[in-house]
Amino acid sequence: MPVETLRWHGSLDGSLRIIDQRLLPGELKFRELRNVEAVFEAIQTLAVRGAPAIGIAAAYGVFIGVRDCPDDSSTFRSELKRVCKYLAGSRPTAVNLFYALDRVQALADDMAQTPAGEIKEAILEEAHKMLREDLDASRRMGENCQQFVKDGATYMTNCNAGGLATGGYGTALAAFYIAKEQGKKVSVFACETRPLLQGARLTTWELMREGIDVTLICDNMAATVLRQGKISGIFVGADRIAANGDAANKIGTYPLALLAREHGVPFYIVAPLSTFDFSLKSGDDIPIEQRAPQEVTHFAGRASAPEDVGVFNPAFDVTPAQLITAIICETGVAQNPDMAGLQALL
Amino acid sequence: MPVETLRWHGSLDGSLRIIDQRLLPGELKFRELRNVEAVFEAIQTLAVRGAPAIGIAAAYGVFIGVRDCPDDSSTFRSELKRVCKYLAGSRPTAVNLFYALDRVQALADDMAQTPAGEIKEAILEEAHKMLREDLDASRRMGENCQQFVKDGATYMTNCNAGGLATGGYGTALAAFYIAKEQGKKVSVFACETRPLLQGARLTTWELMREGIDVTLICDNMAATVLRQGKISGIFVGADRIAANGDAANKIGTYPLALLAREHGVPFYIVAPLSTFDFSLKSGDDIPIEQRAPQEVTHFAGRASAPEDVGVFNPAFDVTPAQLITAIICETGVAQNPDMAGLQALL
Repeated sequence: MPVETLRWHGSLDGSLRIIDQRLLPGELKFRELRNVEAVFEAIQTLAVRGAPAIGIAAAYGVFIGVRDCPDDSSTFRSELKRVCKYLAGSRPTAVNLFYALDRVQALADDMAQTPAGEIKEAILEEAHKMLREDLDASRRMGENCQQFVKDGATYMTNCNAGGLATGGYGTALAAFYIAKEQGKKVSVFACETRPLLQGARLTTWELMREGIDVTLICDNMAATVLRQGKISGIFVGADRIAANGDAANKIGTYPLALLAREHGVPFYIVAPLSTFDFSLKSGDDIPIEQRAPQEVTHFAGRASAPEDVGVFNPAFDVTPAQLITAIICETGVAQNPDMAGLQALL
Repeated sequence: MPVETLRWHGSLDGSLRIIDQRLLPGELKFRELRNVEAVFEAIQTLAVRGAPAIGIAAAYGVFIGVRDCPDDSSTFRSELKRVCKYLAGSRPTAVNLFYALDRVQALADDMAQTPAGEIKEAILEEAHKMLREDLDASRRMGENCQQFVKDGATYMTNCNAGGLATGGYGTALAAFYIAKEQGKKVSVFACETRPLLQGARLTTWELMREGIDVTLICDNMAATVLRQGKISGIFVGADRIAANGDAANKIGTYPLALLAREHGVPFYIVAPLSTFDFSLKSGDDIPIEQRAPQEVTHFAGRASAPEDVGVFNPAFDVTPAQLITAIICETGVAQNPDMAGLQALL
């Protein structure tokens, strides 16, 4: 297991132990979250980040939030609703957060006739299940990548599609962790991923911890590395995949896909089925979040640009399906992805 | 005049006034350099930066270094040699520095029979001449760009090919300054240019100062901006241009050229004749400087990556001639540049 991003410690009176990702890579510090306010704050301040990890943390958060409430049915029911609503406000744009809260709420609704004490236990069990499902899906994604991972080869990735964004193996980085488990030796170039440097701060840290050779580059150096013929493939994650195979991911993914094609390097998206969104016909329908200018103009509180400069700071870009060699998920692989190929994975 | 990067103040007993670029964009501070040690330190610590500006500063530095030495011929001659050798150590990889020192030394050699006092005056005059030549070449480059600059259009640039790197107008940014003088209104997207952020720190500052609309982006956002069809052309500088038209420039230029072609956007190199190097057959012959890992792993002294991570930090990349729409210099324009086209400019 590369990293234990979040784990439940103890039984019903236990706590959620997380890695405080705000302190990485400088310090590996675990925090025990024992009340719902602490879970809220951990999600809000990015101590826990990454779509799957946020969802799992929220599910545990619901349990922590309701475990001490009185067991009479109507009090429990209104308290559950209040806690879910409260946690939904911690990261209002995170789709996995709402997915997790809806799943827990639906479970409780299904158990309407059951005593509250049992529902509480079932919620904790559901959170455990979500974590197990995530770990299992990650491992299977990593295994499904292996047909594209050669012993002794060098790959490239961007952002952090790793264990820190999930229960422990990640999506794109699972390709490298499973390769290592299978005895393959791979090297990785990690793009630093401006503006928030998830590649520099988190991906390098994860890979080094697992003893996987990693070289950090600035995003604008990827073309030079590709031109030198060093790279056998690019593996990245995805935030959302449209019906036609267009994939939204961290800003900087689309240019990497173009550079990959230019240099004859295969380009792989590794993402769980939960990121497929067939309600979107193509990538044009994916809304792109604009983030605060300060992410670009400041580092650790220090200005690196004029105070009032205009800034364009899109969080994601969209890679068209025709630039994607394959989309790899927990159920299989869609080569040259299109609607039929993606539907076959479901 | 956009910025007075460096100017001589006074007569023979005057001083070299420079903008201390280390403090930008936070503070605009001028420094008066009155002895050769101060000139050395300003070049070494990047208070003055940019190939043309370094050369001019060094020429003034020679005058400052010899003006108080005794006027007997052999003392003057050995002192001149010592000062040139001393200044050559301030930035040992800067080609323009050696060009400027050689030019001053050659001037003194030509005047071997002249009294030292007159040679000193001639050296100061030569430094003035180099500054005038630079300003004149910059203006002509900017004018030669105008056939590609449309009123109301938006352009992109990277790094700082601006007034701060030269006597005052710059190379690529001269395109925008002259456009403004001619009454055109242009907007500019500036790529921040990791790792040293010359785009974020210097280009935005220069353009804002001149009232030119500028939007700062991270380097990995350029593809998204180009895809939105916002950009009518990309203007960048060059550090060295080989005989076949391949051009070395700040890291991140080559991927911009590829992205430009992909999105049907013209890509222009703006550089003076002094960057043409016909001793190099192609870009493959241009040596690429590797710089310190700390530039990538630290910002303002703070670590943003694990302590001992491997880093690849090339300072430049090479854009092949076939990706360049035109090379624009002070004597004219080479469209679809090749050896014949470049030789016609000389």
